[in-house]
Amino acid sequence: MKILHSMPCEDGFYMPAEFSEHYGCIMIWPHRRDSWQYGAYAARKAFAKVAEEISKSEKVIILARYDDYDSARFMLPPQIKVVEMESDDSWARDVAPTFVTNGKDIRGIDWGFNAWGGLVDGLYFPWDRDNRIARKICDLLDKDTYDKRNFILEGGSIHTDGEGTLITTEACLLSKGRNPDMSKEEIEEMLKKTLGIKKIIWLKSGIYNDETNEHIDNICAFTAPAEVVLAWTDDKNDPQYEMSKSCLDILENSTDAKGRKIKVHKLPLPKPVYIMAEECNGLDDMNGEPTRTPNERLAASYVNFYISNGSVICPQFNDENDKKALEILKELFPTRNVVGIYARDILIGGGNIHCITQQIPRFE
Amino acid sequence: MKILHSMPCEDGFYMPAEFSEHYGCIMIWPHRRDSWQYGAYAARKAFAKVAEEISKSEKVIILARYDDYDSARFMLPPQIKVVEMESDDSWARDVAPTFVTNGKDIRGIDWGFNAWGGLVDGLYFPWDRDNRIARKICDLLDKDTYDKRNFILEGGSIHTDGEGTLITTEACLLSKGRNPDMSKEEIEEMLKKTLGIKKIIWLKSGIYNDETNEHIDNICAFTAPAEVVLAWTDDKNDPQYEMSKSCLDILENSTDAKGRKIKVHKLPLPKPVYIMAEECNGLDDMNGEPTRTPNERLAASYVNFYISNGSVICPQFNDENDKKALEILKELFPTRNVVGIYARDILIGGGNIHCITQQIPRFE
Repeated sequence: MKILHSMPCEDGFYMPAEFSEHYGCIMIWPHRRDSWQYGAYAARKAFAKVAEEISKSEKVIILARYDDYDSARFMLPPQIKVVEMESDDSWARDVAPTFVTNGKDIRGIDWGFNAWGGLVDGLYFPWDRDNRIARKICDLLDKDTYDKRNFILEGGSIHTDGEGTLITTEACLLSKGRNPDMSKEEIEEMLKKTLGIKKIIWLKSGIYNDETNEHIDNICAFTAPAEVVLAWTDDKNDPQYEMSKSCLDILENSTDAKGRKIKVHKLPLPKPVYIMAEECNGLDDMNGEPTRTPNERLAASYVNFYISNGSVICPQFNDENDKKALEILKELFPTRNVVGIYARDILIGGGNIHCITQQIPRFE
Repeated sequence: MKILHSMPCEDGFYMPAEFSEHYGCIMIWPHRRDSWQYGAYAARKAFAKVAEEISKSEKVIILARYDDYDSARFMLPPQIKVVEMESDDSWARDVAPTFVTNGKDIRGIDWGFNAWGGLVDGLYFPWDRDNRIARKICDLLDKDTYDKRNFILEGGSIHTDGEGTLITTEACLLSKGRNPDMSKEEIEEMLKKTLGIKKIIWLKSGIYNDETNEHIDNICAFTAPAEVVLAWTDDKNDPQYEMSKSCLDILENSTDAKGRKIKVHKLPLPKPVYIMAEECNGLDDMNGEPTRTPNERLAASYVNFYISNGSVICPQFNDENDKKALEILKELFPTRNVVGIYARDILIGGGNIHCITQQIPRFE
């Protein structure tokens, strides 16, 4: 593996859409005691279900800490590869590389990671184990890596159509905890040069109470070029209403890199989901403070799905909108198997199915 | 990766000779402070030279602990893959799987490892990190693994011609620290069934003061079917003389699995090599006791070479026999590049080039 310091776009590389063909998917076996209740057993079962579904149509590689290797190996079916790797938490989307392709081979971008805000409003300290994962994954795959550790970015904060358009949120990318010394224009320039982007659509905000500073991947996702799903509620008393409405207005008044209007499909939100005291009781404190308090609203959203080669895997919450969300996705992904997986045990950790996965594009 | 409990020979698998074609080689980045003097810097340089030479003709995968990943990555050239993995020490020959083949695919045997003698005369405690390496390497390579952890064996204690013959030493395999509840016949049976062996040639002993209980790979190695090199001294005052002479007598009176007489090529030993006080001063104590004492004789031998696809890599000791050993190997390996690497900094750790490598046979 070579460590490169050039810009991917100068080398003819760009970030493909998630719905392009994959070689496989990276996930991380959950372990953190202040993120995952009661020793992460319920979370591990949910992660295993997601991994098994993905493994039906692409290679799945699960990273497990030294102490957790056997747990992962014996809870996962044999077609899934388990690889020892240290981590601080289990959000592959945000700590694994963002892969770029030149149509033949792939390379991985190793962004800086500071636990969603570093010493300003990050969620844990230290985060060095997470920050070192991306490079090691590239080494594992024998793929060269771009060292962009001087730019803080999580994979969950960007979505691309693979045709030059990127969507993101200002709430996250312009947050004070990430790249406070860079202007919006400088951040745009960095995204364009690293990801091969021509046009960036900036939404203001994401999902209410989303502790990632409102990652794009919980509110809006490309389902095809010039088509997105947007997390939506009709309840004007819900603070989410204004947030989603603002996104809708921006999207409906935007064109993509190829000049096309964006078609927006509303994906209904589940009713607000709250953490329970019983769940909070299974979490370690952090520095003597609880990481979750009973009745805290969780950032539940059906948009947080993963697109594998053969399926679209969508979180379910035992909500009356569960089925509706799957039906909408079935219409939008007619060639894929749309699968719902009950995901409360992932949501409690602070994200969902998209957040715990990172696709590896196909290579020759 | 599947974890198998059958016997490889029943599944049509056997251990190929080291001089058969390889996919690649496993090594482990040295780190142990009571094995490698002065923070293992000199050892790392020597390991890197060996790895680089091997990488000219086959894939090299280096396992590095979390803390050592960057050290390995930046000291090694990009064609070498560095993979995070915990270990207690750095002897890939003894802790990586012994691979078996059916002519198309390979599988790895995961032997029990107890640091060369467990609580009887093992060299360190605990050894659980080492004992867990073999399974994880198979997972990394997507190759199924045989769980034989109930049988203690190190890769350095066996050599095979790939045609049904195995050589080993009684000093090691019948030692009290390994499988004390098994008879010699039961051990033979285990080796035959796991490695596809028909005939075992038992030498009595190995190299004088070899702390592995005298591994075969330091005294005798196959160079071709029915041909071996044997570490040799003509100095009758050296305790090694009687040990090597005993091996010679046994080998010259043995036939292999195919009924052929064994041709023995004497490979001269270097003059006795002793560790110096200055080197001992760079080693941590173990439980308050030194692991090496000044003027201790080290088990130096040219037989501890590695056969890669393109070369034979032989330790050198700044000894007058260095060149002679290379010349003999050149005659025995006419199609390979015979390369000497100065290896005192590996020898100090307790083994040599063969001990720090483990070949992965070619697969389709």
